[in-house]
Amino acid sequence: MVADAMELATRALLEANLGLAEQVITGDERIDDARSACEEQAYALLALQAPVATDLRTVLAAIHAAESLERMGDLALHVAKAARRRHPAPVLPEPVNRYFAEMGRVAVQLARRAEEVIRSQDVAAARAIEDADDEMDDLHRHLFTLIMNKEWEHGVASAVDVTLLGRFYERYADHAVSVAKRVVFVVTGRMPGTVSDDDL
Amino acid sequence: MVADAMELATRALLEANLGLAEQVITGDERIDDARSACEEQAYALLALQAPVATDLRTVLAAIHAAESLERMGDLALHVAKAARRRHPAPVLPEPVNRYFAEMGRVAVQLARRAEEVIRSQDVAAARAIEDADDEMDDLHRHLFTLIMNKEWEHGVASAVDVTLLGRFYERYADHAVSVAKRVVFVVTGRMPGTVSDDDL
Repeated sequence: MVADAMELATRALLEANLGLAEQVITGDERIDDARSACEEQAYALLALQAPVATDLRTVLAAIHAAESLERMGDLALHVAKAARRRHPAPVLPEPVNRYFAEMGRVAVQLARRAEEVIRSQDVAAARAIEDADDEMDDLHRHLFTLIMNKEWEHGVASAVDVTLLGRFYERYADHAVSVAKRVVFVVTGRMPGTVSDDDL
Repeated sequence: MVADAMELATRALLEANLGLAEQVITGDERIDDARSACEEQAYALLALQAPVATDLRTVLAAIHAAESLERMGDLALHVAKAARRRHPAPVLPEPVNRYFAEMGRVAVQLARRAEEVIRSQDVAAARAIEDADDEMDDLHRHLFTLIMNKEWEHGVASAVDVTLLGRFYERYADHAVSVAKRVVFVVTGRMPGTVSDDDL
């Protein structure tokens, strides 16, 4: 769901498409509900079954993953709201469109890979997600170079929009990595390090 | 610890004080360690004691709170890093200084109130934290109005810094609210709604 949300939100952003933006905005409630349902189910399991070892780690990873995934939904929601706020004007000045097309592609791919890792519990695939996140960090850094460049001619308001939107994509990717790291923890029993760190 | 970190980071920002910035940056590891220790302890309690009802909710709230608090530490770290990056130049153009002084004050106050709520389990005090967060949202909105104003004369790079820094303070406050909401859940048994939502 959060991969779909970010895919639609990115299209809404790039095409200044109000219908798609509204779809993401309306759809966010379903993501929030799924998170609550997941958390309640996890609490019930802990209370009624008192799981230990791998089972316990699985339930706790689910609680953490649900939180990260809901947050990813919120970030897609922010992108959609930005598209709606400026509609019918495009939010992005033309030269940064391709960065956001790429960041959108990478973000959605990370979310889909996190989904696969949740299903497969494949530790190698989980670790590979971190490398894919490097791609996002590179895009994000290049984007900043562009805004900070003295030749930026699209005004301050537009720079502010681009800054926040760039951050939303980068945080979305961080959360996908965080979900993958929790799967590593489930499988290996090794507590991952800081999972919420971003490097800005 | 995260209240102290944000207090120092704000001073580092406003006074362009490299020593204070370094202190926050170095100190973040202790916050990360405290979070890991808290989480390990919580896992051990779940595995060994299989708590139910209020005890279970307390342990789970601790896991969530530790995550939020670590994130608050990261956000203070980002503020400190911004101060270091631009040193010896100040990061902020003079007219926004008072906004950040206020946002810093509110952020630190929210963190200290969250600490009190954790200790006291006082539901009324927990709910009052949400009102204090409105103050942060107001400051944040005014700050944006200022940047987006056509008369902003401090350049794009500076607007980008101010945008991101404003967001760090706002997210910090959101996490303090999230911690307080979890305390409400511990005491009342009512699952709070979305706890990670921000309104930007």
